[in-house]
Amino acid sequence: MPLEELTVADLSESELLARIFPRLNQSPSILLGPGDDSAMVAAPDGRMLISIDTQTQDQDFRLEWNNGYRTTGFDVGWKSAAQNLSDINAMGGSATSLVVSLTMPPDTPVEWVEGFADGLTAGIVGLGAPDCSVAGGDLGRGREIAVTVAVVGTLDGLLPVLRSGAKQGDVVAVAGTLGRAAAGLALLESHIPVVSLTAAQRALLDSQCRPVPPLAAGPLAARNGATALMDISDGLLRDAGRLAVASNVVLDFDPVALAQYALALEPAAAELGRDAMSWVLGGGEDHGLLATFPAGIQLPEGFTAIGSVQAVAPSQGSGVRIAGQAADTVGWDHFAD
Amino acid sequence: MPLEELTVADLSESELLARIFPRLNQSPSILLGPGDDSAMVAAPDGRMLISIDTQTQDQDFRLEWNNGYRTTGFDVGWKSAAQNLSDINAMGGSATSLVVSLTMPPDTPVEWVEGFADGLTAGIVGLGAPDCSVAGGDLGRGREIAVTVAVVGTLDGLLPVLRSGAKQGDVVAVAGTLGRAAAGLALLESHIPVVSLTAAQRALLDSQCRPVPPLAAGPLAARNGATALMDISDGLLRDAGRLAVASNVVLDFDPVALAQYALALEPAAAELGRDAMSWVLGGGEDHGLLATFPAGIQLPEGFTAIGSVQAVAPSQGSGVRIAGQAADTVGWDHFAD
Repeated sequence: MPLEELTVADLSESELLARIFPRLNQSPSILLGPGDDSAMVAAPDGRMLISIDTQTQDQDFRLEWNNGYRTTGFDVGWKSAAQNLSDINAMGGSATSLVVSLTMPPDTPVEWVEGFADGLTAGIVGLGAPDCSVAGGDLGRGREIAVTVAVVGTLDGLLPVLRSGAKQGDVVAVAGTLGRAAAGLALLESHIPVVSLTAAQRALLDSQCRPVPPLAAGPLAARNGATALMDISDGLLRDAGRLAVASNVVLDFDPVALAQYALALEPAAAELGRDAMSWVLGGGEDHGLLATFPAGIQLPEGFTAIGSVQAVAPSQGSGVRIAGQAADTVGWDHFAD
Repeated sequence: MPLEELTVADLSESELLARIFPRLNQSPSILLGPGDDSAMVAAPDGRMLISIDTQTQDQDFRLEWNNGYRTTGFDVGWKSAAQNLSDINAMGGSATSLVVSLTMPPDTPVEWVEGFADGLTAGIVGLGAPDCSVAGGDLGRGREIAVTVAVVGTLDGLLPVLRSGAKQGDVVAVAGTLGRAAAGLALLESHIPVVSLTAAQRALLDSQCRPVPPLAAGPLAARNGATALMDISDGLLRDAGRLAVASNVVLDFDPVALAQYALALEPAAAELGRDAMSWVLGGGEDHGLLATFPAGIQLPEGFTAIGSVQAVAPSQGSGVRIAGQAADTVGWDHFAD
């Protein structure tokens, strides 16, 4: 049977695994890899960061989008790597291994699964985490495709940088892109056929399907005195609001700094009749980093100042402002609309 | 709104989390718990066992079974704990923490989710792993309920016991129950209404919905010289076949020893017109342990000898036999039928 016609129902679990394993990279942090009841990974400093994230078909991606783009297994594999590696990055750590659960309907093409494994590996290596690899996993059947990845990582002896450490007077800075993944999502949901996209528009679409979190920036921020750190996965305002609450401070954004991010998105926004700044403020999934640093220190490479940390005024609680004005929270909540 | 009418769509993610967190136990191995981008857990000996497992609605459980039983959130939480803790047990280790991803439709009752959290905690504590707790998680929306748990654990400085270490002359032994969960599944799929079950039948049903893996047995086996160890989750014959292949040996089972396990299931088998021995040989989900020990040593408490390890004959490969006869492999494969 030609590969493009083969589905997972045509293979046993071990046959499917035999097609997946050779596509995964190897790293020395895996002391015992797939094949037993558990894997074993090194935790040299006696501590381990851990996080878990799920992508579900028709919630986090569509197999076929409104504009005709078909999400590949490679896309989902890459994005799984990106969003999980970002959670370790956001603590100031480096990912050392992943365990992966892939649930899918029996008619899922084997080619899609092979692409998923390839995308996972390409994401890990391409995003700059070659010392991370897949330690183990689980395959199962479901009505929809769902991928859950748990990631573990090391701080190499450093303290984790939490959301709760921002102090009055700190500089607020971001690393990575803002709003590009949201612009890409708008293009995927638009009526502009994928084949008609300009190169710039296609690059925005790619930011949604294969995001590029700044993985070097987390440990760099930790080593350079960041007081608070988190990844922006649900939108700048929403995530900044969480950091503000955790630190009991006000984050005040500089609209001029934010405008630089919107500027690059203006052509796509104009084409779609959308507002570029709302992508910058509300869009997640670029998996950029939001950090605070003590005032007066030189920001590490890759970080751009976008505001300052202020004390909570007696009359108002913690939260986010733009040039001193209350910013309406927009962004992603999984259940509330 | 009364609790029984409240669905997850009525709450924000943070409101839902606020109902979950107080239901989770705390353990000192969690250095940093839920609330940041990653959790942090202790790995005192510089290594960490890790495994991942998913339960999907209508694949691994039905919300309502043929016999009228409704799977509770408590059941799914307990079973998630059980099957994941068992994967660490099967290496000779002890679980230290879990991360949990729960995907569900918006109309899922909040009461179901609270029950899930309660079941997770009750499973962890009730199965004898009070030093384990939930370090973090992820909530998301999907068309069906899916629970993925990744578990990490410690070997306390010991070597892991792999599937590949069985040696010619070893004794084959099991800990825990065999076939009870399969009998429970048959009852759930039968036409005997749940309200008409005898106490013994109800106990079998409970073995399927809330299995009780022998968590003390894994570390005990490791400390007592077990040469190979794995958990029986897809059926004795299928899992023993995997151990035989990994060790390149033949496992020869004693039918008299296996008959003891079937005997206890005979009344239910007779009632349903089924074969009790096929439950013993083919049923998974009891999450018992399959181990091999050097001949002549006293088996640790909880283990029962069921056969011996023999060399592979030149004419035949590794595999499983019963009293020297080839045993047809039965059991669970996620994709092949």
